[in-house]
Amino acid sequence: MATDWTSEIEAAAGRISGYIQRTPVLHGADLGIGHPVDLKLEQMQHTGSFKARGAFNTLLSTDVPSAGLVAASGGNHGAAVAHAARALGHKATIFVPEMAGPSKIALIRDLGADLHVVPGAYANALEQAQAFEAQQGAMQIHAYDAPATVAGQGTMALEWEAQGLEADTILIAVGGGGLIAGALAWIGGRRKIVAVEPETSRALHAARAAGTPTDVEVSGIAANALGAKRIGQICFDLAQAHDTETVLVCDDAIADTQRLLWRRMRQLVEPAGAAALAALTSGAYVPAPDERVAVLICGANPAPDPFLT
Amino acid sequence: MATDWTSEIEAAAGRISGYIQRTPVLHGADLGIGHPVDLKLEQMQHTGSFKARGAFNTLLSTDVPSAGLVAASGGNHGAAVAHAARALGHKATIFVPEMAGPSKIALIRDLGADLHVVPGAYANALEQAQAFEAQQGAMQIHAYDAPATVAGQGTMALEWEAQGLEADTILIAVGGGGLIAGALAWIGGRRKIVAVEPETSRALHAARAAGTPTDVEVSGIAANALGAKRIGQICFDLAQAHDTETVLVCDDAIADTQRLLWRRMRQLVEPAGAAALAALTSGAYVPAPDERVAVLICGANPAPDPFLT
Repeated sequence: MATDWTSEIEAAAGRISGYIQRTPVLHGADLGIGHPVDLKLEQMQHTGSFKARGAFNTLLSTDVPSAGLVAASGGNHGAAVAHAARALGHKATIFVPEMAGPSKIALIRDLGADLHVVPGAYANALEQAQAFEAQQGAMQIHAYDAPATVAGQGTMALEWEAQGLEADTILIAVGGGGLIAGALAWIGGRRKIVAVEPETSRALHAARAAGTPTDVEVSGIAANALGAKRIGQICFDLAQAHDTETVLVCDDAIADTQRLLWRRMRQLVEPAGAAALAALTSGAYVPAPDERVAVLICGANPAPDPFLT
Repeated sequence: MATDWTSEIEAAAGRISGYIQRTPVLHGADLGIGHPVDLKLEQMQHTGSFKARGAFNTLLSTDVPSAGLVAASGGNHGAAVAHAARALGHKATIFVPEMAGPSKIALIRDLGADLHVVPGAYANALEQAQAFEAQQGAMQIHAYDAPATVAGQGTMALEWEAQGLEADTILIAVGGGGLIAGALAWIGGRRKIVAVEPETSRALHAARAAGTPTDVEVSGIAANALGAKRIGQICFDLAQAHDTETVLVCDDAIADTQRLLWRRMRQLVEPAGAAALAALTSGAYVPAPDERVAVLICGANPAPDPFLT
């Protein structure tokens, strides 16, 4: 039976409302690119990314075993799971790939999780998390490809519309696809949603081209957040259903956009947090003359942390 | 004749609306201090502080001489004047005290102003700016004690109320007093406005104690933005009329609050930008159990600039 996403996301929003931050929106930001842009500053969410939404929704809709939680994460999801577990009184074991970097690793450690740093990329951390789950009976929280995760991330889109979103088009950065899946699940065909991926981490783009989720090589400056080796099935099915446009951006455009967000908006975000906006600033996505465009700023856990010495 | 501040601020808002950023608000921020706080992120204003409002209002309501503009500034006002001058096609000469620091000095230079770095504190820069004004016939834009500046800064309060501000009390950091004067001028007695000053830069506190504006020594980590030697007369008169409460915060509380804003909200602000919130986090201001509190985050030009190498 098809998931009733509207009900799932409304239920998630009610469930997590006391635990997450209603993040601010900026209407008509002047970024010097010839037209105003609406921004949602979701990087101001607890632990610095949207991931807290899915983590709280999962924990609040399931019985958590005494072995607690286990997650594999490039950093942001692990921080969100650690934060939600602590807030709700559960044990959390997090497997983080080395490439997450010292800033994200310190963030997760400070949140009280049992942390394991795994050599290499995300897939290695996921493998170890799955082994731990099997051996210990801990509950796995998938970073993006689980209905409760997607419904939780979908509350971002519900919230933005409740805040008066007027955009025709929303640009969202894609890694494993949990966030854009949530947005597609909530918004459906009512607005155009554009998927933005780094050229070097293009799991959705490759899947759309192949007609099925397929493995890709991942690298580049946003890889610790957007470097999923394969797009989530939930995301892929929703993107197919809505014929979602995918746009690729290069690392230089992402880095330039990080600088632009600081210079013009005093927002210090990680590469993944600047990727969706980079599609506009680099011209990878060119809106029509009257098209009202909104961009989600999704993460702000940069390396180096300005206060980490 | 008494100034009709309501009309002046409404006129200013109309005048500058195409030039300034409508800055976002965060309703019910969870900063871990036992109660939610509303924040207005005015540090996202053009050039990183509220100062652009007063600068544009001044330039758009006056005939600017061919010698252009002159301003003395601890950094943020100078950046705003340089930005507004360039946007409107005027020449700008800015005198900046050395203590403004390399980040703010680079910001002003990059905005195309003719920049003079003056040894020492703000008062020295003001003296040189006044001499330049007299010799060259350039127009002085006072950083805080002029009606057009105050009316421009008052548009921040008008905008916040139009965005649905529900607070009983607003905490605002005070240097020379232009911003709080604008807020008092717009809000009058409809809400409580609390003035927050560093212990080491307490021009309004000293003036309120003495019953008249009086010179103070200035130092400390927020001095390049809040270190006015004497409170502006317009601010003082409004604070007397509304019997404005003043609260003092120490440098350690300001620095801790900068860290808190990064850790919990991923907002990187300068010391002055964290000062008003520091009154809450340090307990210098303790709200009543049902008191709804809002805090203005006013500036984000930190030294060092994370992108300045």
